[in-house]
Formats: sequence, structure tokens, C-alpha cells
Amino acid sequence: MNMNTIAATATATGEGGLNVIRISGIDTFAIVEKLFYKTKTREKRISLSNELSHTLHFGYIFENEKLIDEVVISIFKNPNSYTGEDVVEISSHGGNFIAQKILKILLNCGARHAEPGEFTKRAFLNGKIDLSQAEAVADLIKSKTESAHSSSIRQLEGSLSEFVNKTRHDIINITSLVELELDFAEEGLEFVKKDEIRSLIENLNNRLKSIIDTYITGKIIREGVYLVIAGKPNSGKSSLFNYFLKTNRSIVSKVAGTTRDYIEESVIINGVLFNLIDTAGLRMSDDEIESEGIRRSHKKIDEADLIVYLIDSSQGEKLTEDDLNYFNENFGGKRSIAVMSKKDLTKSNCLPELLKISLLEDETIEALKKIMTEKVINLETISASEEIILTNLRHKICLENVVKSLNDSVKTIDENLSGEFISVDLRTSLKYLGEITGEVTNDDILNNIFMNFCIGK
Amino acid sequence: MNMNTIAATATATGEGGLNVIRISGIDTFAIVEKLFYKTKTREKRISLSNELSHTLHFGYIFENEKLIDEVVISIFKNPNSYTGEDVVEISSHGGNFIAQKILKILLNCGARHAEPGEFTKRAFLNGKIDLSQAEAVADLIKSKTESAHSSSIRQLEGSLSEFVNKTRHDIINITSLVELELDFAEEGLEFVKKDEIRSLIENLNNRLKSIIDTYITGKIIREGVYLVIAGKPNSGKSSLFNYFLKTNRSIVSKVAGTTRDYIEESVIINGVLFNLIDTAGLRMSDDEIESEGIRRSHKKIDEADLIVYLIDSSQGEKLTEDDLNYFNENFGGKRSIAVMSKKDLTKSNCLPELLKISLLEDETIEALKKIMTEKVINLETISASEEIILTNLRHKICLENVVKSLNDSVKTIDENLSGEFISVDLRTSLKYLGEITGEVTNDDILNNIFMNFCIGK
Repeated sequence: MNMNTIAATATATGEGGLNVIRISGIDTFAIVEKLFYKTKTREKRISLSNELSHTLHFGYIFENEKLIDEVVISIFKNPNSYTGEDVVEISSHGGNFIAQKILKILLNCGARHAEPGEFTKRAFLNGKIDLSQAEAVADLIKSKTESAHSSSIRQLEGSLSEFVNKTRHDIINITSLVELELDFAEEGLEFVKKDEIRSLIENLNNRLKSIIDTYITGKIIREGVYLVIAGKPNSGKSSLFNYFLKTNRSIVSKVAGTTRDYIEESVIINGVLFNLIDTAGLRMSDDEIESEGIRRSHKKIDEADLIVYLIDSSQGEKLTEDDLNYFNENFGGKRSIAVMSKKDLTKSNCLPELLKISLLEDETIEALKKIMTEKVINLETISASEEIILTNLRHKICLENVVKSLNDSVKTIDENLSGEFISVDLRTSLKYLGEITGEVTNDDILNNIFMNFCIGK
Repeated sequence: MNMNTIAATATATGEGGLNVIRISGIDTFAIVEKLFYKTKTREKRISLSNELSHTLHFGYIFENEKLIDEVVISIFKNPNSYTGEDVVEISSHGGNFIAQKILKILLNCGARHAEPGEFTKRAFLNGKIDLSQAEAVADLIKSKTESAHSSSIRQLEGSLSEFVNKTRHDIINITSLVELELDFAEEGLEFVKKDEIRSLIENLNNRLKSIIDTYITGKIIREGVYLVIAGKPNSGKSSLFNYFLKTNRSIVSKVAGTTRDYIEESVIINGVLFNLIDTAGLRMSDDEIESEGIRRSHKKIDEADLIVYLIDSSQGEKLTEDDLNYFNENFGGKRSIAVMSKKDLTKSNCLPELLKISLLEDETIEALKKIMTEKVINLETISASEEIILTNLRHKICLENVVKSLNDSVKTIDENLSGEFISVDLRTSLKYLGEITGEVTNDDILNNIFMNFCIGK
């Protein structure tokens, strides 16, 4: 055995009705035959290579003479499997103990524990999917909202690949123009041809730039909005946090400094994924642990996509004004929303012109939610659009490099250099384009991509 | 459609490579045919009833015109399925979003969301397994240790069922003796026969009692030991807790009162599952939240199977003595171990004769672990034994009722009552015995059992 057959649990860890363990590689059948029996008395083994592909078999997993579980195995023969290799999936009873046990037996029988994303990496290396599709698999699994699901399933089905192929086709056409027509004209470029090529490249570049611009939206679709709820102690941050979560995840009490550390939870509001961060109240504290919490809060505020700053409207005009000044001085430059909290407890008649909320009045919170989502994304445009939305930083960087190389080629044209030099720039852009789908790749790129996968995929 | 076809996610929730959604019932095939296509262009549907049982099919799930996922479906035709009904399993990409999405489509197409354990309940109702085997499925999934796995797989394979059947056979034989031989002897019981029957019943009862006695061990195997780490503030509870967990799950600091609430984590020590509970330090506190934590700590201590009480050995003789007295007064009556912590910081030479531990000296912790496991269980006896170990309270109660009825029959014999009365007691014991395997059952028993299952099993 060459240890090139990999195994891993493919289902999420935790308590569930069943677990699936996936095995892929040249020795898959030989390994599974060592531990799988058709009968409980271990009289009848199975010859997997004699069975048909895409069939299911009930049986028993044994470790030496000890029965481990009743299972159903699925046989997928190469090349008709996820990885393109011989694959067996063992569907066992749920729970981590059994999954770990069966996995251990497989490893003892000659399989190697799969690295994260290694099954999908093999699917890519065996030509079942291209690299952007492989990345879509990871995004699809992580998707938490309708828009994240839509963009990743579209990418899995090849929308980005199609765009890349079309763009490649266009660049190759331009390169042909340059190499065939221009290179033969030894006396240099003709004026008309030069303008023609220049405008072809610039049109292409504009299209690419508009795709690159979708990345800001794409990032929000994929990762969500990091929203910090900030404000002075006892301004109602944890209460608002809990209201959004509709649970009691974070301890709420009237004691200032209750939230000693920040707490982060994801919640979908109006179809947008928000990563809500409830921070410790921003005040000086003698409490060692609380001070650490406040320091971390400031860090979270610096990293936030959006800040909702609560000003306690029950504290009287002077304090409110001070608080608003503090907000303007510290958060004016960031994407932020100042909100007056505790509307129901307001004593003052003279409050700043800000949104006033009370957890007792649902419509005020709905108004806040509306402002929060509008600040970050226009979802209607996204779901209506069949356009590509770039959700992946790697794709964005590749496309930016394509744009840069195309710009270089325009400069080369403008400098009246020979067609050979233009051609070099165009071919560089093709290389960057090829990195998106993995036609051009290397181990570093692949390792970077697949290490972000979950194990078992 | 009669809404009797059920669907649920069968894999654990969370991020994983794949999810499995299970559908079972008379309309399974009709429902899946509504959303599953063989091609991405939705030209080719599938006729599941025309396909062979135990086959796998790659295809696409659509919601109206929108592609939801690429999936593989498994077909199991009745009666050759887990439930005994027509079953389809849809293996989709992982992640909760997709699983929920596909489940929603299935519900829209006429399936009903399965109740916890409903698939296994159907397996029982359709005669695929008996009730004690159904319960073993739940235990198997929840098993976290070797011993829990062994006892539940043995039960799933029918060890308890066999014991019940053997016992039933014995009771029926005795009943026959009573009904045939004794009832015909109208002049009353012969002395020899009476003694013979009496001793048959008592032998049986002794065997049953020895099985019932295994329940204490069985409970520890199944649920683990509830171990509270208690002690005065700053006696090193959280540090020991973390040492056991080999993580930093609980915040450790030198500030007394850091652990405001109790924290519970499971860990396997020497093959035994311990549910470790790190409690707030036992002292009076002005802090509103901390006081609540201390109140909860006392509650946890009351419920514990075992208490490890830490006495800070660095605090000087007087305080140490006071602390030991506090321990003896409050925990002397419980299963408890008093331990001197911070051995490395000890200033005093005159310490009580207790185990002294330091987190800097691994061997001292190993000694503590040894005492902890020996206090609760003898694992070697368990793994060596092929005997039944009762892990389920319901089975214990059933067997206790069997014993009680058999005792009643002995009393009836001793009171020289007619064979009819003896027979009534023996038949009552058979009823209780039948409850274990589900030959005798009712909706309440079934609901109680299956509501403790996970959904999708």
C-alpha cells in the first residue's frame, strides 16, 4: 500500500443520526474489505471490485473480533466519483466516538488521514472541477444566507469559469491580432490597428474593473458585516445584542461592567449576515479583567465594518451631549450609526436629531435594522442580478493583476514598442487569468486554498 | 398525500463536507421525484420506483427553477431499509443552510418534519428491531467511551433481548408448571411441587437482582460521573479544571471570584467519562452576579456523584485547618476527596495527611486521577465481563417490577392460595418483562423513549 488512499469523516462532528466516513484512492476497496463483513458472524466478506458502482451494501464493521457498528457502504468506482478515484462512503451510526473508531481502524488498515479539502483537491487534480469551482464548494458549505448560497452555487456551476474562459478567448484574440498582424508589419504599428487594439483592451479592462468592483458586495455576502455595538456602560448594548439574537446568550444585568469580554454571535437581519459584537462598556475601570475587556473592545471597534453607538437617552441633556461629542470625535470618520437608546425612559425634551429606539417598541428596532442593512448592501440589486459577484479575495487579486498587465500592454502600445513586447504583457494577463480556474497553478496556491476547507471535503 | 412520509436531517448540524437528509414513508419516491433531476437543464427526471433498491444516483435539487445543490441520492425500497418503509437519503453539500433549504423543499412537496427518533420508532413498529435495540441506537450515538460503546452495541445486537427472551421462557415454564400440574390438583399444592416452584422462582429472582445491581455501573458508563471541583476562592479550581481539559476553556486569573458561574465540560480520564464542573469559589460576596454563581455552585455540589475539594496548602496552618474542618462538616457525608493544592507553594510543614497536588508535578495529578476513577468504577471488571450491564433506568424499573411480581408469587405460594393466583402474579411479571423489548407497550412509553432521540434518527 502506498498510503495514498485517504480517509476522513465527511459529516459535521457532534450528535446526529448518522456519520459518513469517506475513503478515496487506489487502495480504497482493498482497505474496506479488511474491516467490512456482510454478516454478523464474519463468515461473509465482500469483494468490492466485483460489485457494481453506485450500489449500497448493508454490513458490519469489525475491529479484530469486536463488532464496532452496523453500517451501509456506498461504492463509487473511478472515474464516476467525487474525486475521480475509487471511493467508498461508510454510513455509520452518529456520534463522534463511532466515527473516530472506524476512522482509526481504516488508518490501521492502510489509509492515511485526509488533509483539509484533500478530496476536493483530488477532484481538481483529476479534472472533475476547476479551481474556482473547488473554492465554490467551500463557500457553499459555509453559506449562511440566500445571497451567499446563490453566489456560491452559481460559481460551482461554472459562472466564474465561463467568464474567465470568455475573457481568455478575448485576450487570445487580441494577442493573435498583435502577433499576426502587427508583428509582420516590420515597420511598426499602423495607426488604425493600434487604436483598434487599444480600444479592445480598454473595453475588456472596463468589464474586468466592473467585476472587481463587485468584491465589496461579495465580501459582505460571503463573510457578513462585522457590526460592533458600542457605547458607554449601561447604555443598553447587551440588551440590544440579545434582542437581535432573540436569546439570552449574553448575561444582562443592571450592573455596569457586566460584559467583561466581548461576545460575538452571527445573526441574519433582512437577509444580511451580521456578525454582532457586544463589547464591554467604554469606561475606565479598576477591575483587571474588565480593563482587558475594554482594551479588546477598542480593537474590535477598529476592525468593524459598521458601528452602532448607543447613547443612553435617559441620562439627561448634559451627559447626552457629552456622549454625542465623544461619538463624533471618535467614530465620526468610520461607518457608524449613533442611536438614542431607552426612548421609553427619556426624561429630557431636548435630544439630538437621532434615531430613538426602545426595546419595548418593535418598530423602532425595525427602523434601526433597516438603516443597518441599507448602510452596507443593496440586496435587491444582488438577487435580481445574474452578473458575477466576486466573493473571493484571491479571484479579486488575480483579476487586478490581469487588469494591471492589460494596462501595461496599453502603455507598451503607446510607447510604440514592438508587437513582441505587447504580446508579453498580454500573455502575462493570461497567466493571471489562468490562476483563477487553476490552469496555471502551483503548490503554494493549492495549499493555501485547500487548507481553508473542512476536513472530509 | 397523507403527510405520513417523514423527512429530517440525519447528520449533525454544523460545518462538514456533507449532509444527509433522510425521507421515509409511502410517498417517499413521489416526493423526491418532484425536486430531483438527473441533469442540470432539468430535462431528465427520475422514476425512483423503476430503479433498483440499494442504488445511488447523482443529480440536482431544484426549488422551482432555482438550482439548490448537486446531490447523490440513495434508494432503499421497503422492506429493505432502516425503517422498513421506502427510504431515500439525499447526500448534499455540508453546512446548515443547504440542509435547511432542501428540507424545506421536501416539506413543501408533501413530507412532514420527523419527530425525534421517529425513523427508529418506525423501525420498531415495523418489526425491524425491538424496543431495547431501539434504545441502544440512541445510547450508541451518545457513547463517548469504550465501555459505553461496548455496552450499547451489545444491546443493539440483542444481548438484552436474548436475556429477556430467556427469562420469559423460564417464567412461562414455571407458569405452565403452576397452571398444568398445580391447578389440576384440586386438593391444593403438593409440598414437593410447591418447594420446587418456589426455588425456581427464587433462583430466577436472584439472577434478575444481580442484573439490576449492574445499573450503578451502567449509569456511570452511560452518563459519566458528575464531578464537582469545589473549594474556597483562589484554591486552584479553575486551574485544575483546565489542566484536566488541556485547554483554556475557563478563564483563569489570580482574582478571587473570577469564575462567576459554574462551567461544565466532559473529559475522559482513565477510560471513564467525567462531567467536570468548575464552580464559583465558596465565599460570601457582595457582587450580585457572583452570589448567584455561588448559589448555583452549592446546587451542583448537592447533585454531584463525586466532589474533589481543594484546600490551598499555601495559606498557612490555621487557615488550612479551618478549611479542612469546613470540608469535614459540609462534605464528610458525600462521596468526596479532599486534596491539598499548590503543593509547590506550601509554606507550612504541618499539613494534614491528604493527597498533595501541584499542577507543576504531573505525577501528583496522575495520583489524583487514579483515586477519582477508583472511587467510582472498576473498569477492568466491565471490559472483561460479557455479562449484561443495565444502563437504562427504564429497563431497571421494568426488571424491579418483574422481581416484585415474582416475589408476590412466592408470597402467594406461601399463603397456600390456589394456582390461579400464582399464575396471575407470574403473568404480571411477564407483562413487565415484555415492556423491556416492547412486546407490551403503549403510546406513553414509546413517546417517552423516542423524545430523547436526536432528530433524523
